[in-house]
Amino acid sequence: MPFGQGRSACVIITMRLRNKPWASPLIAEHPEFIMTKPVDMQGKWQSRFDQERPLYLEVGSGKGQFIVNMAQQHPDQNFIALEIQEVAIAYILRKQVELQLPNLQLILGDGADLTDYFEPEEVTGVFLNFSDPWPKTKHEKRRLTYKTFLDQYKAIMKRGGVLQFKTDNLGFFQFSLVSMNNYGMHFDLVSLDLHHDDRVVGNVETEYEHKFASKGGLIYQLTARFDVLA
Amino acid sequence: MPFGQGRSACVIITMRLRNKPWASPLIAEHPEFIMTKPVDMQGKWQSRFDQERPLYLEVGSGKGQFIVNMAQQHPDQNFIALEIQEVAIAYILRKQVELQLPNLQLILGDGADLTDYFEPEEVTGVFLNFSDPWPKTKHEKRRLTYKTFLDQYKAIMKRGGVLQFKTDNLGFFQFSLVSMNNYGMHFDLVSLDLHHDDRVVGNVETEYEHKFASKGGLIYQLTARFDVLA
Repeated sequence: MPFGQGRSACVIITMRLRNKPWASPLIAEHPEFIMTKPVDMQGKWQSRFDQERPLYLEVGSGKGQFIVNMAQQHPDQNFIALEIQEVAIAYILRKQVELQLPNLQLILGDGADLTDYFEPEEVTGVFLNFSDPWPKTKHEKRRLTYKTFLDQYKAIMKRGGVLQFKTDNLGFFQFSLVSMNNYGMHFDLVSLDLHHDDRVVGNVETEYEHKFASKGGLIYQLTARFDVLA
Repeated sequence: MPFGQGRSACVIITMRLRNKPWASPLIAEHPEFIMTKPVDMQGKWQSRFDQERPLYLEVGSGKGQFIVNMAQQHPDQNFIALEIQEVAIAYILRKQVELQLPNLQLILGDGADLTDYFEPEEVTGVFLNFSDPWPKTKHEKRRLTYKTFLDQYKAIMKRGGVLQFKTDNLGFFQFSLVSMNNYGMHFDLVSLDLHHDDRVVGNVETEYEHKFASKGGLIYQLTARFDVLA
């Protein structure tokens, strides 16, 4: 099995996040922060924020440490956390109810339906953090860096927008380098040891990343664009 | 210093290979195996072998373990070892005088002058193994995967020919992934742990690679093409 190394955040979430009785009611109580029918907002996402700012989307936000910290550190940008698991998004929502960040919105939805949720050029940047590596070759089409997913990111992103991908999974990173290269994407930065890379400042960690790296595991990152603006 | 990891074969060769009094005379004695004026053979390299076969070039052969083993294992291909250091190429020549491989030729020459040595499309594939990483940014133009070197490989290679690059140096590999991507090359395979990669069979080691990997060091490999044939 070429994908022997590492372990995905998704797997951990799947295993650890049990249903919580408070999740569903909390989501119902806060339509100002979370969309459960994101197709209704297609082309109108900026209206969900207090003001228009460049919009960044994380596909698969887990419990949200990354996107919440990003929103706090970058008040000049708007952020959307997308999660398919109700319990996970409820954890993020619980934080947001407390923090009331004006530049953070949540979506309970499916990363495979991005073109239903967003209009072309509505998104400035996309983050993929520790997505499920789907290690078996027969499942490669499910990997979030497979070409059909790249089609979706490209369709909703502004020209020159950046896709930033982090993983601890060696096989998934190998696959993604080839997939994104073969798609014709332009690499801006490849890091094979993100946490000891002098070129990268201000890395924002996910929950999983923090635990994994603290045990000495390597974190990989690829930053790339669909097109290069002159 | 981002290139802290690893150590280049070139550095080791530079440090360890002392001048040998037998090197120069041996080279002078065997013009049938080694060219010291490779510009004279431009476009005519196949005539140096007993028969025409697809021609593979290693730029920077060190003491030649890789290229000699390749020539032994692939009698249906012709190989050229290029080295800039007289003592190193003399070590390879000593092996070749003993082995008399009909599909191996040597060049004492400079990897920066490839277009003077070869005609367009004369070479089917190029190998770069554990080249000097030139870790300082001010020296990046000397790295054998810098765009001006890629220009040279492209100029002498057949359409669809493969460039295979191996290194143990993390920073050099990061740089090369970006450089070769930005050049528009098509990645066939990326391995971040070549010696434990089930997809790769028949890896032929260099002297340096064998020592480094036996101590547990990671070997990286990128296989890429300048163009994809339909």
